[in-house]
Amino acid sequence: MSRELPIGVFDSGMGGLTVVKQLHRVLPNENIVYLGDTARVPYGTKSPATVIRFACEDTQFLLERQVKAVVVACNTCSAWALPMLRKRYDLPVFGVIEPGVRAGLKRSRTRRIGVIGTNATIRSNEYSRGIVALRPAAKVFSMATPLLVPLVEEGWINHPATLAILRVYLKPLLRHKIDALILGCTHYPLLKRPIRKITGPRVHLIDSAESCAGHVCTRLAEMSLLVDRAEKGSIQAFVTDDSERFTELARRFVGAQIIAAQRVEIAPL
Amino acid sequence: MSRELPIGVFDSGMGGLTVVKQLHRVLPNENIVYLGDTARVPYGTKSPATVIRFACEDTQFLLERQVKAVVVACNTCSAWALPMLRKRYDLPVFGVIEPGVRAGLKRSRTRRIGVIGTNATIRSNEYSRGIVALRPAAKVFSMATPLLVPLVEEGWINHPATLAILRVYLKPLLRHKIDALILGCTHYPLLKRPIRKITGPRVHLIDSAESCAGHVCTRLAEMSLLVDRAEKGSIQAFVTDDSERFTELARRFVGAQIIAAQRVEIAPL
Repeated sequence: MSRELPIGVFDSGMGGLTVVKQLHRVLPNENIVYLGDTARVPYGTKSPATVIRFACEDTQFLLERQVKAVVVACNTCSAWALPMLRKRYDLPVFGVIEPGVRAGLKRSRTRRIGVIGTNATIRSNEYSRGIVALRPAAKVFSMATPLLVPLVEEGWINHPATLAILRVYLKPLLRHKIDALILGCTHYPLLKRPIRKITGPRVHLIDSAESCAGHVCTRLAEMSLLVDRAEKGSIQAFVTDDSERFTELARRFVGAQIIAAQRVEIAPL
Repeated sequence: MSRELPIGVFDSGMGGLTVVKQLHRVLPNENIVYLGDTARVPYGTKSPATVIRFACEDTQFLLERQVKAVVVACNTCSAWALPMLRKRYDLPVFGVIEPGVRAGLKRSRTRRIGVIGTNATIRSNEYSRGIVALRPAAKVFSMATPLLVPLVEEGWINHPATLAILRVYLKPLLRHKIDALILGCTHYPLLKRPIRKITGPRVHLIDSAESCAGHVCTRLAEMSLLVDRAEKGSIQAFVTDDSERFTELARRFVGAQIIAAQRVEIAPL
């Protein structure tokens, strides 16, 4: 595997751009190829079998673009498809859950950790299993929060209705006296401010995009797969639906940074 | 075309079941084949080109099941794909928009009509165009209400957050003094009660599922395509994602009526 190749990143839609943003921040010289499966988004409401099938097709697409590693920038896919992807494809595959688990344990003092995510992510129980595997005494409190993705995609970040819905979701977790909350969906970092309004400053918010980027950086360095050049890397984006709406939302996610989005069709396996 | 064949109905997911329910009520002896493209749901946030492609693939699937007519039980597909489907396939194709337009005009006295729907439906402007074509003096006030589908799918029908969101969406329409409101998405009939709380009793709510079923009945009778037998018809359902979640939600839509859902893959065209 050549270190000069780009890093491949995929997500069901836009959410994975929060991971791209963090990756570009810690590894500014790497080229990144991003795939957002916007024609079939969301994955988080769908069944494990369908999520695994889509994740394999997305990975196959990135492999054909000659990437040196694949980052699964989607909690739902990380929860269900990671073992299958690692078995099937012969290159490093990184998910968002393991780094989130480690970051959560690092920041929590009381070992009472909350997790929010899509229906599919929470149903998988992967965060809880990961935390307890490393710290058997830890207590994990999970809550599926499926309305947050549509709210983010509509841009209702600081809307009173969003606050009301967040209150419904978070109050039961706060009653369990958590001191860290894992934002187990790549869309959720955009809701940090309203979430903090409800949790208060004592609960550490764990951004899975941030912890994933750090993890990928460390692992690629260990494998001598970091690029060896001084120029800034490029970000090339592919989407399966119209690239217009993507570009509009992409600005909300990664800021003004330019992403040349291109529409593609993903071949069924 | 044989009158003994079933009626085909498709939607992006579950919403079209409101149409199935009404069809089965007015045409109890007809067999119905339903396709819900639950692996790629929703369509309402996606681009016209993708919606048209999916609608053609769904129609092709139903044709292979030998149906005598196709009901596009999805406002987004009706808005964007109907002309293409009618051009491409040689059988009667019915949408939900035209019947909704007629029902809206019939119920409104002041000719000030509100329309709510997905982003894609509202962007198409098809309701507005249809109403003004029949009554040039009518005034149409449209509002995209993209958060309602996720709220219905989560079952937050009478939740305070749903009422708060409905208030944000409907207040601007009510300020225009509408006296009829077209529920331009097959999910919305499930929200009739909270919607009525906000509109009050003076605004007629137009259920596009109900008006569509009446229209299909009239047109099939005119074409001598109504089935000629006394036994109750069956409802056979196909879905592209897991059938388990479908069955759970299907009960919310059509009541206890049994639907034998079967998982299938749709061939790309």
